This record gives sequence, structure tokens and C-alpha cells, in this order.
Amino acid sequence: MNPVLVEALRGDTVESAHRGALAVFDADGACVASLGDIERPIFGRSAVKVLQALPLVASGAADRFGLSDTELALACASHNGEAEHVSTAAGMLAKAGLDASALECGAHWPYREAFQRQMAQRGETPTALHNNCSGKHSGFVCLGCLLASQHGDGGDARSFLRGYVRPEHPVMREVTQALQATTGWDMAQAPRGIDGCSIPTYGIPLRHLALAFARVATGVGLSPGHALAARRLRQAVARAPFMVAGTDRFDTRVMQRLGERVFCKVGAEGVYCAALPGRGLGVAIKIDDGNNARAAEVVMAAMIEAHVDLDDADSQFMRGFSDVCLKNWNGIEVGRLRASPVLRQAGAAS
Amino acid sequence: MNPVLVEALRGDTVESAHRGALAVFDADGACVASLGDIERPIFGRSAVKVLQALPLVASGAADRFGLSDTELALACASHNGEAEHVSTAAGMLAKAGLDASALECGAHWPYREAFQRQMAQRGETPTALHNNCSGKHSGFVCLGCLLASQHGDGGDARSFLRGYVRPEHPVMREVTQALQATTGWDMAQAPRGIDGCSIPTYGIPLRHLALAFARVATGVGLSPGHALAARRLRQAVARAPFMVAGTDRFDTRVMQRLGERVFCKVGAEGVYCAALPGRGLGVAIKIDDGNNARAAEVVMAAMIEAHVDLDDADSQFMRGFSDVCLKNWNGIEVGRLRASPVLRQAGAAS
Repeated sequence: MNPVLVEALRGDTVESAHRGALAVFDADGACVASLGDIERPIFGRSAVKVLQALPLVASGAADRFGLSDTELALACASHNGEAEHVSTAAGMLAKAGLDASALECGAHWPYREAFQRQMAQRGETPTALHNNCSGKHSGFVCLGCLLASQHGDGGDARSFLRGYVRPEHPVMREVTQALQATTGWDMAQAPRGIDGCSIPTYGIPLRHLALAFARVATGVGLSPGHALAARRLRQAVARAPFMVAGTDRFDTRVMQRLGERVFCKVGAEGVYCAALPGRGLGVAIKIDDGNNARAAEVVMAAMIEAHVDLDDADSQFMRGFSDVCLKNWNGIEVGRLRASPVLRQAGAAS
Repeated sequence: MNPVLVEALRGDTVESAHRGALAVFDADGACVASLGDIERPIFGRSAVKVLQALPLVASGAADRFGLSDTELALACASHNGEAEHVSTAAGMLAKAGLDASALECGAHWPYREAFQRQMAQRGETPTALHNNCSGKHSGFVCLGCLLASQHGDGGDARSFLRGYVRPEHPVMREVTQALQATTGWDMAQAPRGIDGCSIPTYGIPLRHLALAFARVATGVGLSPGHALAARRLRQAVARAPFMVAGTDRFDTRVMQRLGERVFCKVGAEGVYCAALPGRGLGVAIKIDDGNNARAAEVVMAAMIEAHVDLDDADSQFMRGFSDVCLKNWNGIEVGRLRASPVLRQAGAAS
């Protein structure tokens, strides 16, 4: 039974609570902190996009197509579908000589309601470029174009790419191998599901996810190519944190403030991972009930407070995410959303 | 520790799970089924709107202002803010000689994204009439206008009404007394919070909420005035189920199909209540983590399957809410959302 990590109070009463598990590991595989079951495989979802983007860089595709930091950051993103995200994804595809028709992620309205309304007001409807995964998929397409040229089938990238979301496609095999190499978890034995954007997602224990992100933080335990790629992707996101999420999003706001000291990435269903280079740590979180915005973010904020060296102002900034005032439609304070005592102790004990 | 009531599967693997508690009682106070902690006070939120609407009818205000079934249904609603909801709320206020400026619920965009987009496309912004609670508040305003005329202060309803959302206001005192009378729970000792629409919400055990809804289902244990009012409100919602929620909403769809056999009402933070007149039962549900759409609805559907006499077609209809196919942006089936084995057993054991 996983412990309560986040409490939602109304007045002085705990109205709702979120249970979950977390792991904080170093790159040697030592556990720095943990709560709950960190051995059960959980689907990494979009929290592992930086691991999935390693082949894009390590293969040479990023250099071949001259991808910028902004574009590499988008390859690691679950973005808001704002104008800059959409145009950057289109730009990545154009560098590979393709367009949005190459994407197999499907289309959806931006998750943020305000952006949906703005699009509707302009008479727009969403395309695959608005899909929060369009940057990751554009990266897959770039990788696929490089692989197509290497496969010597006349360079018909379009036909080579078709079905790139399927587990057995050469692009996805590269991506899965990167997951296996960084997490040390055997993907052939892992539970497999289909992600929102149609690529496979694998069940991986939090222990192994935290280890993988400690490796991303330090390069220790990675192949030289993956170590260089991880460093380049972390730096790209630190330089273009807007790309990884967008306006008012946790990942963007935290990395705009803390720069290379934190690489954090949300995933669907209450999954969160982070690489913390300062102390060489990796963090992996899963909220049992799958709640992202109000549970996983609170836990990640508490972990950053506990495991990153912050001055008072930065600590205060992060506390704004781990102990949040809740207001109603009239702007009246009705409660708080906060890290549970158990979660605070786990941080303090580290 | 409350049991898992709902599982979200990706492929064959349980990805996320929702714990919670539920109580099914008859009007004599006998427990027909229960799971988890039904003694802890939980905030009833919008699930108790029918109890809060009893004074509107029992006081004579509904007759005084000639409220229709459609309007009484809206007084029990958490609606979508669709055009019919907005105009019906405005009509209720007009019958009392007032307009939207009397409402103290605040304004918000409709929860359903498609309706937000439609409004944005038309260049509209939300008013208090769009607030999902505007019907309940319009009912409070009608009640307040009756009380103002009885208080003999010159009938200045507007000044009498001011602050009607506060616990000590005569309108809210009537509403709180109805909650106490129907649940048998001492509101003076109950935890109190402020609801999304600014009225007080009280902590009431699921045991007492289920009892109150069994009383609403049967009239047993209610004052004659409340018994008549409960019957009238149930019938009003059965005749105008669109008003209580709206397009594609669980409460509307279920009551459109099952009519007076079910009165069910969602509340924020994973609360759900129902009156089931056939067997004279009341149901009260709380999901620990506060998830409504994908957890509380599944539990309510399973309870309706277990405790309402349904033919095969109606059972199949309800099964569509308690065992749901999940698809991704490409329309590919990626998993299921379903009642847990423990929840199914609790139903079967009854």
C-alpha cells in the first residue's frame, strides 16, 4: 500500500488525498530516498521522452538535419500546442524534407483550455502539429530519415517511415533499445501498452527509471554516445525551457528559474521523472490514481526542494508548487494543496 | 484504508487505480452494502443539491414564483452552461423580478471544452448564469425573495438577499436545516468548508448521506413538506434530465434512459449520491483522490446495475459506463476503465 503523498484540504479538513510511490537514486544504483512500491513496473509515458530522444542525437540525425537547441528541446516535450511549438515542429519536419503528413501521433486540441478558446476564436482546428507529442514525433521522423538513407533502399524516406510508431519498426527499435540501455530493464519482458500518441510504452519499475535519470544527470553508466546526447538534450531544454511545455506549465516555469540544475518532465497518469545534476540524482514518481497537475507536480516540487541546492528565494519559489492556495470562482481561499507529512519527512531524511 | 473501486488498464496492466468508499442504505437506516470507511465526514459538495433545494419547494417559493419542472430540475443541477441552462436560470430570476446580478456564485467557463470553444467562437465570455451552480443559486434567490416578503422589511428583496451565500444568512440557514433534517447529522458539529460557488459545504458521513437519499427515494423519515418536495424534485428531474447536467453527461444520459427509477447527482471531488425508489435505497460514494469523471461515475454505474431492476438492454446500457473502452488520439483502443473486482462483489453480495 503506497502512502499518501499529497493532501487536498478544504478549510482545515483533508477532503481528498493522493497516494503514490517515488524513488531517488544516484548513478551507482544507491537509493537516496524512496516511498512506496518502487519495484512494480509502471508505464513511463511521456516522462521518459528525453530517453526516447537519445537516438535522435546519438545516431547523428540531429547533426545531419542541423537541429537547434529549440528543436531538440521540443523533441523532449509535452507541449501546449502554442504557435511557437507548432511552427518549431513544422520546422524540424521541413529540415528532413517532410511535413505534418509524416506524423503518426494523431491530432488533439491543446490541453490548456485558454489555448483551445484562442484557436476556436481564430477559427482554427488542431492538426498533428498541435499534438503535445509532435516534437517527439518530429524527432522520430528525423531519426527515421537518417535510418532510411543508411538502409540503402533508395532513400524513400516516406515509405520507410510508414508505421514508425509500431514496436517492430527500426525507428521504434532504436528508441526501445535506448530505454533498455539507460534503465537496465529488459524491455522484452516488460508489460507493454500503447501510448496516447500510438507508440509503445513499457512498464518499468521506479527504481530503474530513477537510475536512468541519475545516468542522464551524470553520464555515469551510459555509453559515450548516450552520455553526450543526454548532456546535449539537458542543455537544450535549459536553454529553451518554453519548448518543453509552455505558458504557465510547471516544467517550463521550474526550468526557466533553475536552469540546468533541474531537468524535469511530466508524463500522463501521474508519472514524473527528473535528472538533478548537482548531486547526481535521478527522481521517478508515480501517483496511484494517475493525477498529474495537482498531485505529481506537488511531489516533484517537494523532491526538488529536498534534493537541489537552492537559496531562500528559489526555495520559496518551489514552495509555491508544493503548498498551493486553492481559490474558488469568486477568488475566495477555500483550501490548500500540499505535500503530505510523509512526503516532507522523506525529503528531510535524505 | 479504503479499497480500490475502479481500475484503469493500459493493455492488460492496471496502470492507475482509484480507492474510495460507498454506502447503500434503506430509509430505516439498514445498511444494504458498504465498502471502506463510511463514518468519516466527507464534504457533500454538489451531490446534495437536491437536499439543498428542498426548502425552495417546501417553503412555497417554487409555487409562489410558478417554477416549472424544467426550472426545478435546474435548481438541482451542475449543468454544462449550455444555452438552455443559461436561459432557464435567467428565467427563474426574472420570475422573482431579478437578474444575474443577484447571483453570488461567480462566473466560470463551462467545464466541457467543446462548449468553451463554441462560446469563444461566438465571441462570448461566461457570466454567473454559465456557472454550473446557477440554477441552484437562482433557487436560493427565489427562496430569499419569499423570505424577504415574510420578514416584512418592506420587501426589499435585493438588500435582504445580499450575502445569501454566507452560513448565517436566513436563506443558507434554511438550506442547512434541510441538510440536517434529511441526513440526521448535526451540522453545528460538522466540519465546514466553502464550496466552489461560495456557499458552505458540510462534512457528513457517507452513512448519513445514503440515509438521506433513501429518504428522498421513499419519503420515509422526512417531514411531510420535505417528502412532497423530494418527490416533486425527483419527478422534475426525471421529466427534464437535460437540465440537471447536459449534453453527453452521465446524470442526463442515465436519467433520460431510466427515468424516475434513478435520481443520481455528481458532486466535486469524487462525490456521488443517488436515490433509487424501486427498492427504496440511497447511495453515497466518495473517491479518495477526488476523481469524478472516470472513477465516481464508474462506481455509480456499478451501483445502479446492482441495485436497480433493469432488463438486459438497460443493464447493457449501464455496463457501458462501468466498463469503458479507452481510445487514444488515433482512435486505437489502448485500455479499459472498469469497476474493480471488489466493487463488483459488493454489488453482487447485495
